[in-house]
Amino acid sequence: MTLDTIVAPATPYGIGGIAIVRLSGSASLCIGGKLLNNNSLKDKIVHQKANFFNIYDKNQNRLDEVVCTFFKGPQSYTGEDVIEISCHGNPLIVDQIVSACIEFGARLAEPGEFTRRAFINGKMDLIQAESVAALIHSKSEEGNLLNLRLLSGELSKNFYDIQEQLIGAVSSVEFEIDISEEELQPKLVEELSEAMAVLKSKIDNLLGSHRQARMLNRGALVVLAGKPNVGKSTLLNSLSESDRAITSALPGTTRDTIDVPLLINGVPINLVDTAGISNSAEGLEAEGVRRSVDFINKADLVILVNNIFEPTENDVPLPDNTPFIQIINKSDLLESANSLHKNVSENSLLVSAKTGKGLDDLKAQIKKSLGISNKLTDVLSITTARQFIALKSCQKNIEAVIALLAEPEITYELISIEIREALNSIGAILGKTTPDDILNNIFNQFCVGK
Amino acid sequence: MTLDTIVAPATPYGIGGIAIVRLSGSASLCIGGKLLNNNSLKDKIVHQKANFFNIYDKNQNRLDEVVCTFFKGPQSYTGEDVIEISCHGNPLIVDQIVSACIEFGARLAEPGEFTRRAFINGKMDLIQAESVAALIHSKSEEGNLLNLRLLSGELSKNFYDIQEQLIGAVSSVEFEIDISEEELQPKLVEELSEAMAVLKSKIDNLLGSHRQARMLNRGALVVLAGKPNVGKSTLLNSLSESDRAITSALPGTTRDTIDVPLLINGVPINLVDTAGISNSAEGLEAEGVRRSVDFINKADLVILVNNIFEPTENDVPLPDNTPFIQIINKSDLLESANSLHKNVSENSLLVSAKTGKGLDDLKAQIKKSLGISNKLTDVLSITTARQFIALKSCQKNIEAVIALLAEPEITYELISIEIREALNSIGAILGKTTPDDILNNIFNQFCVGK
Repeated sequence: MTLDTIVAPATPYGIGGIAIVRLSGSASLCIGGKLLNNNSLKDKIVHQKANFFNIYDKNQNRLDEVVCTFFKGPQSYTGEDVIEISCHGNPLIVDQIVSACIEFGARLAEPGEFTRRAFINGKMDLIQAESVAALIHSKSEEGNLLNLRLLSGELSKNFYDIQEQLIGAVSSVEFEIDISEEELQPKLVEELSEAMAVLKSKIDNLLGSHRQARMLNRGALVVLAGKPNVGKSTLLNSLSESDRAITSALPGTTRDTIDVPLLINGVPINLVDTAGISNSAEGLEAEGVRRSVDFINKADLVILVNNIFEPTENDVPLPDNTPFIQIINKSDLLESANSLHKNVSENSLLVSAKTGKGLDDLKAQIKKSLGISNKLTDVLSITTARQFIALKSCQKNIEAVIALLAEPEITYELISIEIREALNSIGAILGKTTPDDILNNIFNQFCVGK
Repeated sequence: MTLDTIVAPATPYGIGGIAIVRLSGSASLCIGGKLLNNNSLKDKIVHQKANFFNIYDKNQNRLDEVVCTFFKGPQSYTGEDVIEISCHGNPLIVDQIVSACIEFGARLAEPGEFTRRAFINGKMDLIQAESVAALIHSKSEEGNLLNLRLLSGELSKNFYDIQEQLIGAVSSVEFEIDISEEELQPKLVEELSEAMAVLKSKIDNLLGSHRQARMLNRGALVVLAGKPNVGKSTLLNSLSESDRAITSALPGTTRDTIDVPLLINGVPINLVDTAGISNSAEGLEAEGVRRSVDFINKADLVILVNNIFEPTENDVPLPDNTPFIQIINKSDLLESANSLHKNVSENSLLVSAKTGKGLDDLKAQIKKSLGISNKLTDVLSITTARQFIALKSCQKNIEAVIALLAEPEITYELISIEIREALNSIGAILGKTTPDDILNNIFNQFCVGK
């Protein structure tokens, strides 16, 4: 199948030293030749070689002095003939070059279309393609490390292993169906049970790693919650070293939720300040409380803020499995540690958002409570919701197989169906059996030019 | 002189497909080898060749999969060994790579430092270096064309020609001083006068082109001025196809000046809406009027706006040499052309900012009044204030020489001094005799990474 030739800026929009325009497709060399005012590129252009050129539009207007690097397909990012044009970093020049390429027969690429072609041409599987998008958008160094390992195919290898084991299992099962009377495989149920248990444990681990990877790539949602006037906004300002939230001595100063992205000990966090929760809230204030509750329900971690004047009571409706940290704020107003109200929980951290005291402990506790290990790079995680959903479905099939194997009467036909469905899920994860609309959805999340 | 090795991101900050980090200096290859986890680059790296690599920081953390292109000095942009690292377009990754290069011995480049090295190493003269900055910041296609010609050295050639003629002249003059008694150069005064007249005409033309180049690169300042409530803000909105300015039926709606950049028939314009000028203004309004007058004094073109109800009177204090266009707005409120007040000047354009009628004529008139020719690309212009000032000084010396040659008694010593000063100015324009603080000022206007 021959695809048309696509073009797009590959570098961010803006003024800079250099910008890159990328061409990919079978007509790249032909379009490149036209940019050179119909000089043949054949003599000048060599695989992986960077050459200096003047380039021109259709009306022979010189557009820029550029460096063009040619990558001969299939030894290129997309697997097709690729030309990377490195021009002066002026958005106007970038537009002119892209327009000239289009005049000469290229089409403006859609978001992610270069990577989609890499996928279509077998340069990478779907996990690797997804890791490219994650790598570009990742917000932490640890997230980068993870995505690079995915890009290298380390996670894919896990799925190819699972696929191989499933194919082995389904072959044995279907062989048994065909020749069941002769009992050539006396230990089949035993062996299958063992293999499925190993697979299930592998898949459980991969599923368990998803939350961590999501937090590293997108940032963990950490919500500050508590009664009005306990100092949540002052705490948000202290943790983010900003004056993002308006603070005052009056209860109910915060109405809208305020969202600040920050790194806490290397972990990307979206820290959200919410309106204080009080049962007597009405009108505007009640709407603020409703939004607070929404955020608390989505949170990866809730920081329950009390202060030394009302250290224990708490109206915050916390979901069962959400981790939380209890803190007691305004410790600067304590005359001595002893004067602290007797019924302060021992599990509470004592901090002063105002003076900064106790904030380092709080940060360490946030990382710990999120379950982010320091040796993150040792764990290989699935990263996207798509991978998670497909793997969940695979897990369900494996569990069904395990249940079927435990029954007194073994129905190999049902086992075979379940294993084949599990194989489909793995194929979908790797992009071998992924429907077009899902592919569209994946590549639309890319920026144009990648 | 060996300079240290510098590093900087060369592409704009932001998320994109690709970002480029650039290393330049004698240690580039050594630092590049360290990025490759101490693998020697020598075998792998060839001039102008793009290679795929994994790169690592000092702690052997993998940072990214990249394409490195090597340019061997002096065949590189800076004239030194250059490595361009093309990584995934995530600002975090760019930061990590730059930091790793610094750990391995590079220094973060200052703005314009790569181009400064190109200048120091004789890859370009100062006019060409200035054209790089202008090319990156230029706001119009015509400006780009001009800057590209400067980058190619077309303008520099003019100055080298002038330099050659001046050197010829000063040699003859000083020969005459040395051997004056023998009259070996009987026609010297005549020849010098002729040469100086040709030079003066050439320099006058170059100086005359400066205003046009400045307008193309930075945008012409076009100011809307007139009494309150004649519809200036509505006109700004119509010309910019936006609702940037708040409009109302009340006089004095606009207080702050409003500035909109736009292209009118290919010419970049900064269109400024000012407070209406009225002699009776007080307080806040008077401050608005003061600012309006400031802008009118700086304008490249003033559009004097009247409306059909008060078509002629005008309190706008216009400087003598500023071009202006008179328009009569609100033509939509006319019942017929005949009902127009008799004393409307024949030189006024009739427009309706509200309906858009007459705006095309106005745009054509703006381009014409700014003196922007359609064949701009045929004119080679000096582009920076620095070039203008140095050339002005050169013009003064040439004029002095012409005056000295017209005197009854020729004083060759004075002529020689004036020509040598003219030569200094030309040397400064080309960067041969430019003081360091002026060089700093030029390169500080670049972005980092160029």
